[in-house]
Amino acid sequence: MPNTPALNTHSIGQYLSGYADGEGSFCISFSPRPKLRTLLEVRPSFSVSQNGDRQEVLKLFQQYLDCGTIRKNPSDRTFKYEVRSIKDLIGKVIPHFLKYPLLSSKKKDFEKFAALCRMIYEGKHLKQDTLKEIVTISYQMNGLGARRYKKQTLLNILSEDIVYASSN
Amino acid sequence: MPNTPALNTHSIGQYLSGYADGEGSFCISFSPRPKLRTLLEVRPSFSVSQNGDRQEVLKLFQQYLDCGTIRKNPSDRTFKYEVRSIKDLIGKVIPHFLKYPLLSSKKKDFEKFAALCRMIYEGKHLKQDTLKEIVTISYQMNGLGARRYKKQTLLNILSEDIVYASSN
Repeated sequence: MPNTPALNTHSIGQYLSGYADGEGSFCISFSPRPKLRTLLEVRPSFSVSQNGDRQEVLKLFQQYLDCGTIRKNPSDRTFKYEVRSIKDLIGKVIPHFLKYPLLSSKKKDFEKFAALCRMIYEGKHLKQDTLKEIVTISYQMNGLGARRYKKQTLLNILSEDIVYASSN
Repeated sequence: MPNTPALNTHSIGQYLSGYADGEGSFCISFSPRPKLRTLLEVRPSFSVSQNGDRQEVLKLFQQYLDCGTIRKNPSDRTFKYEVRSIKDLIGKVIPHFLKYPLLSSKKKDFEKFAALCRMIYEGKHLKQDTLKEIVTISYQMNGLGARRYKKQTLLNILSEDIVYASSN
């Protein structure tokens, strides 16, 4: 890190929010899991990807937010900083972006993400009706790139659960 | 912009440096110009590109740095904030990144860029030997993507100039 008087904790906080506004991603992803009672696994994550030759900022995120992992993407030369723990998302990542807000329209995605993480933290992804709500709100988020499953596919899986539950 | 006590001029400065560390580009590009005395046009620029639906940060750069233009890329949905004026690069952009330094290895590119802009500001791109030096240092910068011309192609053009000059 360069030795500059401007670089205190507050400055790094602003800097990382700026970096994350460009390169960060707030994502709620879903995977069908027939063995789970709810049939869907819900995985919230905050991540920042970067070419391997510029890992410094990822290490700064890890150090500053005091959580998350950095791992290499085996398919290309990029590295990814990622926080998946709901406890860390609720206790460290979300408070950071509330203190140092995003300034672009990505802020709207963050706000949905924060609300969804709170629902997950409260266990609302374990109940069918609130899980449906989580799926619906998640699919209103922009900038998530290609989704592996269509929203209706996931909602159909949850509806199958109703049939299954009522037939037993 | 969100109304937050943390968001003063200093905070925005840090934020924009963080954003630029991820999404910004410092570039010196060259074009053969047979009609120019030096045979090569030299164009320094600082730019940040962004999807059209997230232009806010580009406007913030323009407002904060008090220079540059925003224009639409006709070939896709992106917008680009760009500063080409050497006066603005020397007087506004470079001082900003000296005050709020980049924290990744992109900082090394910025330092080369700043040195080259100073050379251009002093008119050293108008003399053949120092123009060769500008080409050589520019091609030591990373992260510039695909270069339109190979370094040797440009240096050969400058060598042609010697022949031309000596035959007149």
